[in-house]
Amino acid sequence: MKTYIDKHKQRFLDELMTLLRMPSISADSAYQEDVLKTADAVAAFLKAAGANNVDVCETPGYPVVYGDYHVDDALPTVLVYGHYDVQPADPLDLWDSEPFNPVVKVTDIHPDGAVFARGACDDKGQFFMHLKAFEAMVATGNTPCNMKFMIEGEEEVGSSNLAWFVQRNHQRLSCDVIVISDTGMIAPGVPSITTGLRGLSYVEVEVTGPNRDLHSGLYGGAVANPINALADMISQLHDKDRQVTIPGFYDRVETMPQKERDRLAKAPFTLDAYKQSLDLNGIQGEKSYSTMERTGIRPALDVNGIWGGYTGEGAKTVIASKAYAKISMRLVGEQDHEAITKAFTTYFMSLAPEGVKVKVSPFHGGQPYVCPTDHPGYLAAEKALKVVYGMDALPVRSGGSIPIVALFEAELGVKSILLGFGLDSDAIHSPNEHYGLRNFYDGIRSIPLFYQFYAEGTTS
Amino acid sequence: MKTYIDKHKQRFLDELMTLLRMPSISADSAYQEDVLKTADAVAAFLKAAGANNVDVCETPGYPVVYGDYHVDDALPTVLVYGHYDVQPADPLDLWDSEPFNPVVKVTDIHPDGAVFARGACDDKGQFFMHLKAFEAMVATGNTPCNMKFMIEGEEEVGSSNLAWFVQRNHQRLSCDVIVISDTGMIAPGVPSITTGLRGLSYVEVEVTGPNRDLHSGLYGGAVANPINALADMISQLHDKDRQVTIPGFYDRVETMPQKERDRLAKAPFTLDAYKQSLDLNGIQGEKSYSTMERTGIRPALDVNGIWGGYTGEGAKTVIASKAYAKISMRLVGEQDHEAITKAFTTYFMSLAPEGVKVKVSPFHGGQPYVCPTDHPGYLAAEKALKVVYGMDALPVRSGGSIPIVALFEAELGVKSILLGFGLDSDAIHSPNEHYGLRNFYDGIRSIPLFYQFYAEGTTS
Repeated sequence: MKTYIDKHKQRFLDELMTLLRMPSISADSAYQEDVLKTADAVAAFLKAAGANNVDVCETPGYPVVYGDYHVDDALPTVLVYGHYDVQPADPLDLWDSEPFNPVVKVTDIHPDGAVFARGACDDKGQFFMHLKAFEAMVATGNTPCNMKFMIEGEEEVGSSNLAWFVQRNHQRLSCDVIVISDTGMIAPGVPSITTGLRGLSYVEVEVTGPNRDLHSGLYGGAVANPINALADMISQLHDKDRQVTIPGFYDRVETMPQKERDRLAKAPFTLDAYKQSLDLNGIQGEKSYSTMERTGIRPALDVNGIWGGYTGEGAKTVIASKAYAKISMRLVGEQDHEAITKAFTTYFMSLAPEGVKVKVSPFHGGQPYVCPTDHPGYLAAEKALKVVYGMDALPVRSGGSIPIVALFEAELGVKSILLGFGLDSDAIHSPNEHYGLRNFYDGIRSIPLFYQFYAEGTTS
Repeated sequence: MKTYIDKHKQRFLDELMTLLRMPSISADSAYQEDVLKTADAVAAFLKAAGANNVDVCETPGYPVVYGDYHVDDALPTVLVYGHYDVQPADPLDLWDSEPFNPVVKVTDIHPDGAVFARGACDDKGQFFMHLKAFEAMVATGNTPCNMKFMIEGEEEVGSSNLAWFVQRNHQRLSCDVIVISDTGMIAPGVPSITTGLRGLSYVEVEVTGPNRDLHSGLYGGAVANPINALADMISQLHDKDRQVTIPGFYDRVETMPQKERDRLAKAPFTLDAYKQSLDLNGIQGEKSYSTMERTGIRPALDVNGIWGGYTGEGAKTVIASKAYAKISMRLVGEQDHEAITKAFTTYFMSLAPEGVKVKVSPFHGGQPYVCPTDHPGYLAAEKALKVVYGMDALPVRSGGSIPIVALFEAELGVKSILLGFGLDSDAIHSPNEHYGLRNFYDGIRSIPLFYQFYAEGTTS
């Protein structure tokens, strides 16, 4: 296997470059033709690697590319998810090379070189590792699992038609576990597996005081000012230990065993570097938890936007009629985003002082996701990374949300293993996106081992 | 005197209409010619009424029209202040008649008719009462005081050059008291004298958290969110009794004697009507004070504007780098606006939690003003109004600020008597501004009595 991969290294990279030359920007309809051509190219690569039943499946939006490789009903089935669409490349003038003309350059972090192009890491470079690992497995007669591939074209615009597709293809997509390479490693050379994603509840609140803007001289002190009221209400959403005060908010938050916390604490993280990179003189968060825990295993509430009254230049002596805020909560464990939105609404309305009316409008939400570290898929990924990197992979709880992972769990009843090889410094969504060649090849080497250990772990 | 006024009623109104036809909009340079012509017209009216030394005095902006009438060094001197410029007339489509083509119409509140035009009440109709009262006094040989007039042309744009003019004309403007008719009566037929104006301290605050906008998923809960921090800090500016918490804030606030509070309480005010007009289900304010007291004799702190983070449509999961608010304080008694701004700044900075930086930028300010109700000018005005209205005038503390009144006290060392005849419903600064003919003529009848009682009260 290793021999096959080494022998075809350059071709793998050349093929990835071909894919990177296609500007598959899903957000911009000017690139529609290119996105569709990219789907066809992915299908061709899948077919060439050995996949059967390859299909460019129509959806109400861009197609999902499907392919599979059935070995034996007795073997476990692994579904690979990825996306062939990319973010827009703007601002173009901040790129050092053309975003769709990939070039390999050496950097401090990537002494073996990195390929610079839009989509290099997110996600063409990463899902392509799976296609090439699959090719190597088929070519060397080393296929310990049944394999399925689902590469979509709308991830960068919210995967709006993926639920539609998954709901209509339960049978075709049925599997034992999903593998996704669309996340990152915690540090260069330090393997990690993302085991948790936070859920999301997002609302907009509107506080109304008097029925019209008032002169703050003539009315100031005699009526509730909706901006002051909103500030008071927001302030009451946390207590002095920076815990969220919404009744029942923590009811379904898991208590993380000390062993797990100790494991999380091993992640290479220094508070000084963190503070320095954000230019902060101090940090703030829930009492008794570390920074990694605050974003990884604990829920949070943040105001994402606020506005009201006069916001132009200079001074205007007005008491606004209305004030607004956008407020989001990141959820963990068994917190249900709909229940939390309801609890927030009830509580926030109860905080309204006399003289103001409050309206809460919920936006979208998503459920938290956790992959247990004793899941056979997790254990297989851990073993594979240990072989390639020579050290134990770190389980990482990411503070962000990837709604499709919760969707897969809800629709297909299976966990996803988030086996990412990107780095924070790879500048995804930004100018000069790149992906290290070392990461690319390490990924291709790790994936067949994952299948091998997964098959061993589930069929023994 | 009364006979003279009655006989010339129609001409007084016709002359006012002439003045109202001049679009003396100081804020819009397109009307520069008109503003200058209006100054000349005012000078001509002053001269025709009998004033000497009439002068259209140049300033760095629009001219101040001056004139005087010296009777005897032994008599007290009264200075009349007013302004001949007006607010812009927009939005024009909300006017029922042309803003600069005055018409007389009967309304529910003005059964004797009111003249509708921009500036009818603010301030052409009101300062013109003084010119016509003066004319009547001179014509009937009834001049118990020396009189001076100072009618400016930049009141609606902040009187920006008035300090310049006053500082250079101490001698010319020297007087014993100033009379200004540019305020209102508390209710139709209920005479009142404004005895207090609140001062103003106005600042903008900037709260900075991380050095760039952050993803609220990846960072939420681990860093101080500047919007949440700003809300917390604003919330701490009041205690549960809605008292301002800035140390020393109330040190120089006068304690109003119960007798004065009882007098204030006599003002025709019903809380139900107040709440209904603002569509409020309740009111809020400093504990143990009435609504009239909260705006009249107590200081207040209000947020006039707030902004930060994502304020567009939909949801964006961002932790803003910066959040802002505009905050003003209305001041009373001996509160000094500069000292209060300093106290606010020190206190507000001290409220900053770890992980944020705070900047406070002061804007303009102004001192509070109080005219004691035993001042000879106040007593003279009270007596004059009693003769005309048959009832005691009410002393009114206005929550607003008129910075020139504090300027006159500081520069010329004299109090101003705020003898206004407008009504809240006269729509100043709004479409369909008007001024009741009854108010206009009552004013012209009251003013000579004011001079008479003032002379009696100061020379006896």
